[in-house]
Amino acid sequence: MDSAAPTLIPFAELAERLACILERHGCSPEVARLLAENCAAAERDGAHSHGLFRMKGYVSTLRSAGWVDGHAVPVVEDAAPAFLRIDARGGFTVPALAAGRAQALAKARANGIAVVAIRNSHHLGALSLDVEPFADEGLVAISVINSMKAVVPHGGHTAVFGTNPIAFATPRAGGPPLVFDMATSGMANGDVQIAAREDRALPEGNGVDRDGRPTTDAKAVLDGGALLAFGGHKGAALSLMVEVLCAALGGGKFSHEVDLADHPGAVTPHTGQTFILIDPQAGRGALPDFATRVEALLAEVAAAGQDRLPGDRRHAARARSLAMGIPVSAEMMTVLGELAAL
Amino acid sequence: MDSAAPTLIPFAELAERLACILERHGCSPEVARLLAENCAAAERDGAHSHGLFRMKGYVSTLRSAGWVDGHAVPVVEDAAPAFLRIDARGGFTVPALAAGRAQALAKARANGIAVVAIRNSHHLGALSLDVEPFADEGLVAISVINSMKAVVPHGGHTAVFGTNPIAFATPRAGGPPLVFDMATSGMANGDVQIAAREDRALPEGNGVDRDGRPTTDAKAVLDGGALLAFGGHKGAALSLMVEVLCAALGGGKFSHEVDLADHPGAVTPHTGQTFILIDPQAGRGALPDFATRVEALLAEVAAAGQDRLPGDRRHAARARSLAMGIPVSAEMMTVLGELAAL
Repeated sequence: MDSAAPTLIPFAELAERLACILERHGCSPEVARLLAENCAAAERDGAHSHGLFRMKGYVSTLRSAGWVDGHAVPVVEDAAPAFLRIDARGGFTVPALAAGRAQALAKARANGIAVVAIRNSHHLGALSLDVEPFADEGLVAISVINSMKAVVPHGGHTAVFGTNPIAFATPRAGGPPLVFDMATSGMANGDVQIAAREDRALPEGNGVDRDGRPTTDAKAVLDGGALLAFGGHKGAALSLMVEVLCAALGGGKFSHEVDLADHPGAVTPHTGQTFILIDPQAGRGALPDFATRVEALLAEVAAAGQDRLPGDRRHAARARSLAMGIPVSAEMMTVLGELAAL
Repeated sequence: MDSAAPTLIPFAELAERLACILERHGCSPEVARLLAENCAAAERDGAHSHGLFRMKGYVSTLRSAGWVDGHAVPVVEDAAPAFLRIDARGGFTVPALAAGRAQALAKARANGIAVVAIRNSHHLGALSLDVEPFADEGLVAISVINSMKAVVPHGGHTAVFGTNPIAFATPRAGGPPLVFDMATSGMANGDVQIAAREDRALPEGNGVDRDGRPTTDAKAVLDGGALLAFGGHKGAALSLMVEVLCAALGGGKFSHEVDLADHPGAVTPHTGQTFILIDPQAGRGALPDFATRVEALLAEVAAAGQDRLPGDRRHAARARSLAMGIPVSAEMMTVLGELAAL
């Protein structure tokens, strides 16, 4: 059908359109620009679950009184020579990171490693977009973020952890950085909602009902049940680690402390995000070149039969988007129009 | 049977006995003492797979010409304010870490975070014992170590990664540090060997045969096949991350580059180990106490029905061992006697 053909929109134009929507709904021009670029970049990379799909959530969150502050000005605290703390002041994480980015880079380069702990922040974006720019600068970057309670501890019956993703980016000699970004839950919350709507069973091992019993019933998971971590007790331990590295280290809220009940429309977790940045070239002396060694490892991985590396699909989507424009469905064009007029 | 009753040996006495064996087979007194204490500590904690069970491997490795150097004196390199490199000089990781430990602690405290990259080293011990002492000092510690190729990349047919464990330790207000230590493979190599010997099938999803086809046949895994990472593509990505953080960052060998074929008797991987140490109190200002926050999280985890935290079993075994002595089976007493006389 012609009516369903996607509109192809250049990155800058899409970002501009999103920035207008965000500014209209309560973001400062600077915050609107940063969030819009982040959202457009996710869509450009084919990371649809963190792209335009999120715009409704951004807007409903901004319109929910007393939740996120679209005009927040983050405060960057030079806690120690290699430790940067950022108080997002109730705003989004993306501008908080942007405010501390140059100082974080400088700290990692000067000291060999740095930690950045953002607190009092809201996050809806793709974690891969947060770590990739550091690897573009030659650093190894790890980021973790906690969210809202959705995942049950190992052997437990009640959700405590968020879907708590871990992202990793490393420079490589033969191409753009290798980046991965994984929830420590077995499934994303959104995918469970879709399964419930379509009355489909979940794959085994992804959820429990309200009594903590294993279930493949998506509705039982949503109705007082919880998700399971990926990979059994190991994934659950990693999820716990993410809570410690984000909330306890950064001084923010644990996932189980986030309660949206008093804020109708709000969909963002009010938690924290932590980065560990390593400069592999710091004081290297006579050691072999880091990025060349990573490339050699990836060649071995390819030779062993892994035909797609984490991020390959994202890079392919990015190349298509940059060449032809970012495809936006007719349905999404309508949504954007409505949000712009709301 | 009376003959099978374990002998109960105090920690110091067992460590002394192990040190004599290690010194007899080519370790310097200092290296022998450190390795013996590490091995006895694993046994004390009930971590049998890294305790006395490993003594035969230590001895056969030390006796394999040109592999590990029991007299190696590690060289600690102050690479950057928060970056310590340690060249183990072909010796074991435990003495290499011991050589740099005070400096690593000082760097983490002064800067908020520090990275320690050990290269040119051999490791047989329990990773939990490497990270726990840092948490005893109030630091959050992460350690990763690559080993020998055993795990196939996602969708591949040939082993590239080691079993590549990740360990994490954090202080908590209400007790000794919370510590976990997990292989990124679904199963340990040793457990596959036991299954093959007993002609038992492996649980689904743990191995591939020499053509990369999924199999539950332990013998097929050992005969040119490989292990799978835990948790599918996510665990495999973490295993790749461990290779990058250890070998590429530290300047050591990737797991697939370790070849024992020329060194009969050698069982230790000749790789590296990396630590990330964070001082949560660095420049905290008015933030709530870190260890108290971790304790609050663990209380929530317990309330959600997780009745045993990572490390609980180890602490219980430790308490029993310290009160009554470390139980050593009659069979193991014979082995130790043989190794002492070899």
